[in-house]
Parts: sequence; structure tokens; C-alpha cells
Amino acid sequence: MSGFVERLARRSRDVGSLLCVGLDPPASLPVAEVAARNRAIVAATAPFAACFKPNLAFYEQSGIPGLRALEATLAAIPDGIPVIGDAKRGDMANTAAAHARALFEVWGFDAVTVNPFLGRDSLEPFLAYADRGLYVLCRTSNPGAAEFQHARLADGDMLHERIAREAPRWGANVGLVAGATAPAELARIRELAPRAPLLVPGVGAQGGDPAAAVAAAGGEPGLVVVSSSRGVADAPDPAAAARALRDALNAAA
Amino acid sequence: MSGFVERLARRSRDVGSLLCVGLDPPASLPVAEVAARNRAIVAATAPFAACFKPNLAFYEQSGIPGLRALEATLAAIPDGIPVIGDAKRGDMANTAAAHARALFEVWGFDAVTVNPFLGRDSLEPFLAYADRGLYVLCRTSNPGAAEFQHARLADGDMLHERIAREAPRWGANVGLVAGATAPAELARIRELAPRAPLLVPGVGAQGGDPAAAVAAAGGEPGLVVVSSSRGVADAPDPAAAARALRDALNAAA
Repeated sequence: MSGFVERLARRSRDVGSLLCVGLDPPASLPVAEVAARNRAIVAATAPFAACFKPNLAFYEQSGIPGLRALEATLAAIPDGIPVIGDAKRGDMANTAAAHARALFEVWGFDAVTVNPFLGRDSLEPFLAYADRGLYVLCRTSNPGAAEFQHARLADGDMLHERIAREAPRWGANVGLVAGATAPAELARIRELAPRAPLLVPGVGAQGGDPAAAVAAAGGEPGLVVVSSSRGVADAPDPAAAARALRDALNAAA
Repeated sequence: MSGFVERLARRSRDVGSLLCVGLDPPASLPVAEVAARNRAIVAATAPFAACFKPNLAFYEQSGIPGLRALEATLAAIPDGIPVIGDAKRGDMANTAAAHARALFEVWGFDAVTVNPFLGRDSLEPFLAYADRGLYVLCRTSNPGAAEFQHARLADGDMLHERIAREAPRWGANVGLVAGATAPAELARIRELAPRAPLLVPGVGAQGGDPAAAVAAAGGEPGLVVVSSSRGVADAPDPAAAARALRDALNAAA
């Protein structure tokens, strides 16, 4: 099996898209309706999707029935479309190994998001799955992201810049999460990590501009996907929303 | 209902213990045996436990059957003993709200561990549950913890020192995770956060010294619990191991 970045690049080229469709069922949706809604979103948006990305929290919030809905959602995603498990896990040694087993073996994700706060050693159990992808949180898209991520280190780097320099060295399938809500930082991250796969959230409901995101991150298949969850899934016509966003991304690439 | 710290302090005083018993079933244990093993550990160690702490990863690694075992484990913990959900979650806004719902409402934890990398705003949905506790990762117990946590900021603080200063201001039930494997940092964290509840992992299998941990963190009920998972659960006689560790902690308090 080829590595995650290669598989993502192939899918991205085949379908001509840099779009990652998030599958995050809102708390207001009864859990019994989650699987059917997701199946409809997947069917409608798959032609325009480089990959899908469920965030586990939105399933965990409904307990075990929510995880059954995640199972059904994953089963509905056609083969050949990479799936990123947005889990943002980060823990030490044997615990991280348990997280990696859960995400890669139980759920079968092609890639996952992880939190680097504990340092590289905490991510080694994930790195051991060499054909899977890791997106390491670098500069997140939330309004308060700068509080610790912009902490300036003694050598002049900000914390997220250090992560951008270091994480891509950890493996061929290790990339970064860098939000579209901070396009200047995104461009700087691309400068520091020219060949790192980037997962770019924050367009749509969070206000990031898709064209600016691609202008900053570049448009090379496999090395960038721009993620939208509510902006696609909650649209009156998810297929039309996904197509429009795909086109906006391609126009800027 | 009183706040988490008050409830933990009461339990800690009632039972004369600063010990937090971790419930982390190893991957080698068949999932069908997890609940029974945990019930036995809980029954044996409850007389010596200020609180219990399951780490969710060890249940998630077995998929939905693992989470059923977590349900059974939580049901076996007697009322009045606080339970800390070791989840280390950290995500933005609406996702963090989903995490908080999962941990506080679905699972009913009295307190949880969280990751501060995204900044204070990412933890606000947790802070909204004012009677529940939060232990914010500050200086973890893994060998590589220093990689980012010791990054020195321009004002001279290391990143974990800044977290130690700031997180306890976020709420009355907000504490810190500070590992016993780094007793000098633990003492410094206590200096920076004199009234913060501390969750101190890293004794036992990880090599931290229990007496040094209490000497550094102080022994005030509610403001410190020292956690051991494998060191108690994997001992030939978990009750004896828990009693011995409780006594070692009390001797240093």
C-alpha cells in the first residue's frame, strides 16, 4: 500500500479537487438521524471531495450510539477516498499507542490529527504506522489560537513556527494543521515547510477565505486540502456547496 | 452540588489519602475481561483511593466493546469517589463543546484532563461546567516533555510556567497536570500556582518518586492527587500496593 500523501495526491488529481469535506453532525440532530444524514452528504459531495474528515467529538457527544453512527458513516464512504480522523489526540507512550490502535486499527483512518504539546516522543506510536498520515496541530483556526501558539521562543521563532520546522522531519506522511483564518501565518508555515502536507480548516462558518488559503498554502495535490464542515453539510444543497468550494479552490491553485 | 475541588478534598480527608488510582487496561487483556478486572481493582483499592482515573484511550483501543467496559467500570465505582476522565482533549469552540458534552454528560466525569495548546478560548465550553474540574496539561511526565513545554518565552518564562500562571485563573476548579518525573519543575509549578489542584502522574512504572512528588506539590487535600496506574493495577496484590502508596504519600505530606 502506498503512503497516505501519495494516496491523497492520487485522489486529489483524479477528482480535480483540494476539498476536504468535514462530517460533523450538530448536537441538535438526533443521533438516530446522523448516519442517514451523513450518507446523504457523502453521496452528494463525494464527486467533489479529495477526502472526508469526521471529527470524533461530534459522534462521542452521543455516546455509543454516536459511535455506531460513525461506523455507518465510514462504511458509506467509497473506497479510494482517504478519510482523516479529526481526533487531535496527544498522550504519552503506551497511551499514545492505544490512541493509534483506536484510530488506525479500530476505525481504520488513513490519517489523523494529533496535538504536539507533549513533544515528538508522544507521537512515535503514530509514526510507527508509516503508511498512515499525521496532521500535527501547528496554527489552529480558533480566535484564541495565538495565546500559546504565538509564544515567541528565545531564538525568535514562535512556537507554531518551531512546530512547522520540526514536525515534517518526523516522517514522509507527517503534515501540519494550519488554519485559513490566519493567512499570513499559513503563508509563513508553507515557507518553513515547503513540502509538508497541510490540512487547512477554517473556511466557511469560521470566516477564512478559500482563495487566500490556497494562495498561501499552494495548490499541489497531496500537499494541501482545505476543509469545510458546516459550510458544506449545512448548506441547502451540499453538492452545490461542495462544487462551488472546489471550484473556488481550483481557481486559486 | 459543591465544586469538584471541594468534593475531592472531602473524599481525600475522609479516607486519608492523596492517591488517584488509574484504571488503564492493557492492550494484552481481552476486552471481555476488562470490566471484571476493573471491578476487582476498584473493590480492592477504593478504601485507599481519593479518586479513580480511567484513561479513555485504553477503552477506545478496543472499539465499542471497550467503551461498554468503561461503562461497567464507572458503574462499579462507589458514589462519593470522584472520577477523573483522562482524555486530554483540546479542540476549538463547537468541537470543544461536543467534547465537554461527551465527557461530562455522557460519561459523567467529575473532572477531566485537557490540552491547552489551542488557548483558553478552546477550553471555555469545559469551563461552562463550573462544578466540574479541569486539569490542564502543564508539564507532562513523558521523557520528551521538555521539547515544547520548556520552550523559553521572550519574557523568560518557559511555556509550562506560563500555563501554570494562567490556567488556574480560568476558574475555581481548574488545576494542572504536572508529572512526578520532573520534581524540580513540579516544585516550580507549585510556587507559581500555590492554590491550584495538581494531578501528578508518573510515579511507579514511569519512575517518579512519590515522596518527592508530595514534597514538591504539597499535601493539602483537594490540591494534590498522585496518580498510579500500572503500579497499582498490575501489582500481584493491588490493595496492598494501593495501601503502600497511600502511606508513602501521607508520610511525605
